[in-house]
Amino acid sequence: MKRLEHIGIAVRNLEQSSRLFTKLLGQEPYKTEEVESEGVKTSFFMVGDVKIELLEGTRSDSAIARFVESRGEGLHHLAFHTDDIPAAKSRLEPEGFVFTREKPFDGADNKQVIFIHPKTANGVLVELCQDRA
Amino acid sequence: MKRLEHIGIAVRNLEQSSRLFTKLLGQEPYKTEEVESEGVKTSFFMVGDVKIELLEGTRSDSAIARFVESRGEGLHHLAFHTDDIPAAKSRLEPEGFVFTREKPFDGADNKQVIFIHPKTANGVLVELCQDRA
Repeated sequence: MKRLEHIGIAVRNLEQSSRLFTKLLGQEPYKTEEVESEGVKTSFFMVGDVKIELLEGTRSDSAIARFVESRGEGLHHLAFHTDDIPAAKSRLEPEGFVFTREKPFDGADNKQVIFIHPKTANGVLVELCQDRA
Repeated sequence: MKRLEHIGIAVRNLEQSSRLFTKLLGQEPYKTEEVESEGVKTSFFMVGDVKIELLEGTRSDSAIARFVESRGEGLHHLAFHTDDIPAAKSRLEPEGFVFTREKPFDGADNKQVIFIHPKTANGVLVELCQDRA
C-alpha cells in the first residue's frame, strides 16, 4: 500500500457531525454524497492529502447503522488506494487476509472498493479503493 | 488541522501484529519504541506521508491494555499535527471539545501530545501532536 486514501468515521447524524468536524478541522466538508446501494450518506473533508469521510446509515440494516448500533459512533475503516484491486487481492489472500466480497463494488467518491474482514486484520476494517474507469 | 500525522491501532501482541501489517502494507516497520510512562510499546509504518502506529499495552492498567480488554483490537486514535498545541487547545475548548489532560505530555516519536475526549468528538479519540523542542 502506497497511500492512505481516507479514514471512515461512523456517525449517527451526518449534519450534526459535519458541523462538529468543521469546528475540529477548521474547514467545511468539500462534498456530501449518498450511496443508495450501500445505505449511506457521506461527507468528505480533506486534511493534507488524506480524506476524512463521515458516514451515516440511511437504513437500519446498512453496515454503518449496524456498526453504530453495536459499537457506537467512531472510527470505522481505513482505506488504502491501489491501482489494481484484483492484483492486491491476489497478493493478500494467500497471506491470510479474507475479503468480505469476491468482487469490487461501487463506493462513494467515484471509487471501486473492496473490504478485508477485520477478523483477519487486527480488528481493523480495511478498504482497498481504486478510481472507477 | 492541516495534516494527519498518524493513525493509532491497538493490538494485543506487537510482534505478531507488526508481522501482519508488514504483509498488509508490503513493508517492514521503520522503527519500534517503548514509552514507559504511558505503558506502551509501539511500531511505526510509513504509508505515503501518514504513519501507522501499532500500540501494545505493557501494563494491564495502561490506556491501550484497557481499550483492548473492553473493545478488542482495532482502530484507536487519529493524530493531527499542529505547530502549537496550546493555541489549538484554546481554539477548540470554547467549541465544546474536552481535553483529557490540561497540559501536553511526552508521547512516542519525539512528540508532545494531548488528547480530546472521544465523548466530545463523535466517539473518536483525537490526538494533537507537536514535535518536541
